[in-house]
Amino acid sequence: MRTIRLIIGFIGTRYEGWQSQKKGPSTSSGQGNTVQEIFEKHLKKILKEPADLISSSRTDSGVHALSLTAHFKTKNALPDQKIKQALNFYLPKDIVVHSARTMPEGFHARYHAKSKVYRYEIWNRSTRPLFEAPFVLWYPYPLNVALMKKAASYIKGRHDFSAFKDKGDEKKSYIRTIRHLTVKKEKGVIRIEIEADGFLRHMVRVIVGTLIEVGRGKIPPETIPQIIQSKDRSRAGPTAKPHGLTLVRVKY
Amino acid sequence: MRTIRLIIGFIGTRYEGWQSQKKGPSTSSGQGNTVQEIFEKHLKKILKEPADLISSSRTDSGVHALSLTAHFKTKNALPDQKIKQALNFYLPKDIVVHSARTMPEGFHARYHAKSKVYRYEIWNRSTRPLFEAPFVLWYPYPLNVALMKKAASYIKGRHDFSAFKDKGDEKKSYIRTIRHLTVKKEKGVIRIEIEADGFLRHMVRVIVGTLIEVGRGKIPPETIPQIIQSKDRSRAGPTAKPHGLTLVRVKY
Repeated sequence: MRTIRLIIGFIGTRYEGWQSQKKGPSTSSGQGNTVQEIFEKHLKKILKEPADLISSSRTDSGVHALSLTAHFKTKNALPDQKIKQALNFYLPKDIVVHSARTMPEGFHARYHAKSKVYRYEIWNRSTRPLFEAPFVLWYPYPLNVALMKKAASYIKGRHDFSAFKDKGDEKKSYIRTIRHLTVKKEKGVIRIEIEADGFLRHMVRVIVGTLIEVGRGKIPPETIPQIIQSKDRSRAGPTAKPHGLTLVRVKY
Repeated sequence: MRTIRLIIGFIGTRYEGWQSQKKGPSTSSGQGNTVQEIFEKHLKKILKEPADLISSSRTDSGVHALSLTAHFKTKNALPDQKIKQALNFYLPKDIVVHSARTMPEGFHARYHAKSKVYRYEIWNRSTRPLFEAPFVLWYPYPLNVALMKKAASYIKGRHDFSAFKDKGDEKKSYIRTIRHLTVKKEKGVIRIEIEADGFLRHMVRVIVGTLIEVGRGKIPPETIPQIIQSKDRSRAGPTAKPHGLTLVRVKY
């Protein structure tokens, strides 16, 4: 069996995320409204055998990916380049394979990921976005970026992020390490970039929602440490809409 | 009567250009598949009277605009800001009004335009575009940018551009002045930017199609002056697809 790594990009607008929350990877209903299902449908055609595709990240419905890593195993000897070409031939316009490569045995897209980088873009202008509309949150009211930066400095680091996750997300540990968290404003667009060793479900979006509350003056940045310590989801900000969020890359 | 100037952006993908070739501005069929028709439909609702919208440029079907200038006259006293807000409320997501402003009497979006700037983007990478797909031409084969730059230097200037226009475009004069014409490649994307005092129908797209032929080695750059002098459309390159073309701005 070969292990093949795919680097994938997609526009999340039309999809229910990478993987439907309800079903596991092998029970694809064939409805094809998750990115994973679409890949498995085409891989089966190309490889003449079914393949389970395992990804670095389970992106939420509506979230985009510039470069997500996934892998599958196959007995098929089709060259890497042909796999890439065949997938790009069959895939819809809003999904693309940047590369396909046979990896040393044992490579695992999820377990071996060291960190993931996400960005969230807020279109902070009075006029709504046009070309950028599918990829940014339009927020036409004033936001204090200096306060947002200060809040970000408290969120950065190793913490229990229970206050910043979806309530339904149950894991053994809610401790994650945010290595980088930057807030920058350029030409009316606020870009939040965040790199961590892993993310809880909705974690980036709750962090962004909280930073927006800080920027609006509703949450003082100095209270962020208390919010983290409280582990109380209701004290953080709302979950920001998914369409402003893009998985930028996965580091190994 | 007030004269109101609109600065408009739109994604051309869904539209038959600014104005249908068949009908004049006052004979809107209400089908709403030109940008002009959509504006006139909503202006009538907002102003409680019909308004003819005159634009700086008649963009081709599928061409985009970052910033196109248009004007209309009205007896309605609605403040500029309200006109902008009402239009943006009614307009579909792929059309936006950046500004609405009452101008001194006599302002004319077409006659007073001094020059127009267009850009054409070629995605010159082996993997197809994703987020950028609606706005770039995907050309995955090698293009010699140095040759394209050389050809551009011959196209620049004041010439009779009969060889670079749609055959159906009949005008008194085919002489236009291209003030700037630059070809740049960055990160696998070739951007052609062109500014002229006016453009013949399909002129930018024929210039781009010709530059691509030059980049492929099919047309030597040194033959460009002969092609211009020949006034023979068949000697220039094909008309490049519209979706890579964007009207960037109109100067007054």
